[in-house]
Amino acid sequence: MKGFPALITVSEFLQELFDALPNAKPLETEDCSLSEALGRVLAGGVVCPFDLPRFDRSAVDGYGLKALSTIGASPTNPIEFRVVATIAAGDKPDERMKIGDKEAVLIFTGAPVPEGADSVVMAEHCGRTNDFIQVRRQVHPTQNVSRKGEDYSKNETIVAARVVLKPWHIAAIASIGRDRVKVQRPLRVGVLSTGSEVVEPGQPTDSGQVANSTKPMLLSFVKQEGCEPIDLGTVPDDLSTISQSIGKGLEHCDMILTTGGSSVGEKDLVQQAVSQLDRYRFVAHGVRMRPGRPTGVSVVGDKPVFILSGFPVAAMAAFQAVVKPTIRHLTGADEEPAPRVRGTLKRRVSNEAGNRSYVRVRVTRSIKGLEVEPLMLTGSGLLSTLTKANALLVVDEEVEGYDEGEEVEVLLTGNTIPA
Amino acid sequence: MKGFPALITVSEFLQELFDALPNAKPLETEDCSLSEALGRVLAGGVVCPFDLPRFDRSAVDGYGLKALSTIGASPTNPIEFRVVATIAAGDKPDERMKIGDKEAVLIFTGAPVPEGADSVVMAEHCGRTNDFIQVRRQVHPTQNVSRKGEDYSKNETIVAARVVLKPWHIAAIASIGRDRVKVQRPLRVGVLSTGSEVVEPGQPTDSGQVANSTKPMLLSFVKQEGCEPIDLGTVPDDLSTISQSIGKGLEHCDMILTTGGSSVGEKDLVQQAVSQLDRYRFVAHGVRMRPGRPTGVSVVGDKPVFILSGFPVAAMAAFQAVVKPTIRHLTGADEEPAPRVRGTLKRRVSNEAGNRSYVRVRVTRSIKGLEVEPLMLTGSGLLSTLTKANALLVVDEEVEGYDEGEEVEVLLTGNTIPA
Repeated sequence: MKGFPALITVSEFLQELFDALPNAKPLETEDCSLSEALGRVLAGGVVCPFDLPRFDRSAVDGYGLKALSTIGASPTNPIEFRVVATIAAGDKPDERMKIGDKEAVLIFTGAPVPEGADSVVMAEHCGRTNDFIQVRRQVHPTQNVSRKGEDYSKNETIVAARVVLKPWHIAAIASIGRDRVKVQRPLRVGVLSTGSEVVEPGQPTDSGQVANSTKPMLLSFVKQEGCEPIDLGTVPDDLSTISQSIGKGLEHCDMILTTGGSSVGEKDLVQQAVSQLDRYRFVAHGVRMRPGRPTGVSVVGDKPVFILSGFPVAAMAAFQAVVKPTIRHLTGADEEPAPRVRGTLKRRVSNEAGNRSYVRVRVTRSIKGLEVEPLMLTGSGLLSTLTKANALLVVDEEVEGYDEGEEVEVLLTGNTIPA
Repeated sequence: MKGFPALITVSEFLQELFDALPNAKPLETEDCSLSEALGRVLAGGVVCPFDLPRFDRSAVDGYGLKALSTIGASPTNPIEFRVVATIAAGDKPDERMKIGDKEAVLIFTGAPVPEGADSVVMAEHCGRTNDFIQVRRQVHPTQNVSRKGEDYSKNETIVAARVVLKPWHIAAIASIGRDRVKVQRPLRVGVLSTGSEVVEPGQPTDSGQVANSTKPMLLSFVKQEGCEPIDLGTVPDDLSTISQSIGKGLEHCDMILTTGGSSVGEKDLVQQAVSQLDRYRFVAHGVRMRPGRPTGVSVVGDKPVFILSGFPVAAMAAFQAVVKPTIRHLTGADEEPAPRVRGTLKRRVSNEAGNRSYVRVRVTRSIKGLEVEPLMLTGSGLLSTLTKANALLVVDEEVEGYDEGEEVEVLLTGNTIPA
């Protein structure tokens, strides 16, 4: 029974893994309705097939006319125009329609601006007497007009490939008349728990046993990343059972996360189990991070199999540090990493040189700004540091620690920052 | 045809609305499996039914013993203990088992610590000869032990009511053996588009018509907020059709968002349509914000009916400013508002006094830190300001503007900040 040799840094771990993965084939694409597309990864760039707007259109309700003819218009010097037509949204831009220098059209938001007009005076800046308006404010050319192609020009890329679709991307794709879109199929990530003492949630626990909290957490993390979570169950500490479960999972998963496997001190039980599989290739086992030091990874065929702690906090840190970047590597998804805020540290945080620490912190607001309090509970088995935390302070390898009062940048986890 | 009177501020608008809503009944609850619970709103607080951990357990692989007996232990002065048993994770805490002062047990991570032991020495800090270990480092009481109740004590609230469930909340609920949870049913939010010139995505657009991009965007926003989006379709600018569609939608929706309705200059077409419904109550129409000035809201029965712009940018701003807070008001969900970052403004942004502006900005990294560039495209019909932006700068009513070079705080939208 030996202590665990943590030989490589988080970056080295990832580099070794990415080197060991054959050139990642892009995920297959699938057709998806726009209403189901939120959060999906766009397979190919969407290009605008025409100018958008498709015609010069009014951005307000008012009178379309030639800007030059309004020069000098003011409340004391109104300029008169004859209203020759009314154009509503939905009316066809009529090529034969053309207005003269002192003519105007009553025009509504979204309606096509006729030839001869280059701007729209808002209705409230005009008086009106029968067929005439008195313009009381001068406008400049293109004022209150959304010009043809101003939003997107023909052949411009509206949304680039690999973008994780947000509501406005969906709007942009809809704006060119499409209601379906090609997206990548989600990455299928299996989660297998090992441990003879570990019981599935919902099952009665005997004295000495523990309910499996890490697997439901990891399945949710996987889902949050836009992947398809696949529950591979919980198996006892038995070499061939573990090996078979991983082998079976690999038939339909793109990646597997295992948890636990050190309950009888045979730290390499899962490692051993993976090594029995065909096309197995060892990559790394042991990372200079805390918690999460015994994290490991192998490649079987072209699929990563991670060995994570059975403890939720260590598993969370490893998920952040190495699993998430691997998901990005495989999907190529172009998404913003976790948002960060800066705040003042309320207590010193120390770090072992060469190690990367993932410290759960609680960010609160004070009159001085944001304050960051490290949660000092011991043990990576403690869930409360996760549920009480609302941010994560990552202390890099070259940093010895941060002093009380020092300003630090933390990653927000999405739990509420109290007002 | 009159200009739109924007009489009240965003805060006043919300206050009037919340005052007009009868004391919001809590949403009905429903039973949900933990694997489906991510992002749902917890209906009632989850309380720990026992101490967690349920027993003192080892946090490492090593030797359980009495800390007092290790005082003075060092590599040059090892202290010897007799190993009397082995305890693995999953073993029952045996009440009859008790060890003496110079006795130790081989103990594995997660295993129960026996009576007489109060700490665990890591295996790598011991030598071993047959039944004896030589301890080379002293430990303090509770070292490497997760104590009973240390994570959560009996009757402690693990996750509070109204929390939006994140992966670690799911882990915490699983840790007490539960695999199901009571959550609020999602708020059902209908979206109805109006406008004779507006065509559903996927349908061919005639010259002069526009594809409906705002409805798919709003439906996605609604989904992103954890609500159930309900597509009520697109109807022409016809009073009775609009009125009937809203009335029908209210039969199964908790809230309705309408878009458009000003295409023929009758700005109050949707307003008029809503006013024909039973139990109608006018709340507000016109907000001192930009874009989104013509935003309105009524209450029908006890349900809000919003009138939003048909233009995507204005609809987005109104969604942020007034719809999202209303959703929170009705669900009571306790979730972190959009994350913020601070950056230096690259160009001046001005604001009309008493008005709140929602400026789409693009945040980029430079060697000096984050830079914030306002996207200066005109027109709230322009989607490209949304797809090119990655943050929103909200300029409050009392702020006249921000100067170039000034540091501002912006709300991140989730689009990528380029490296």
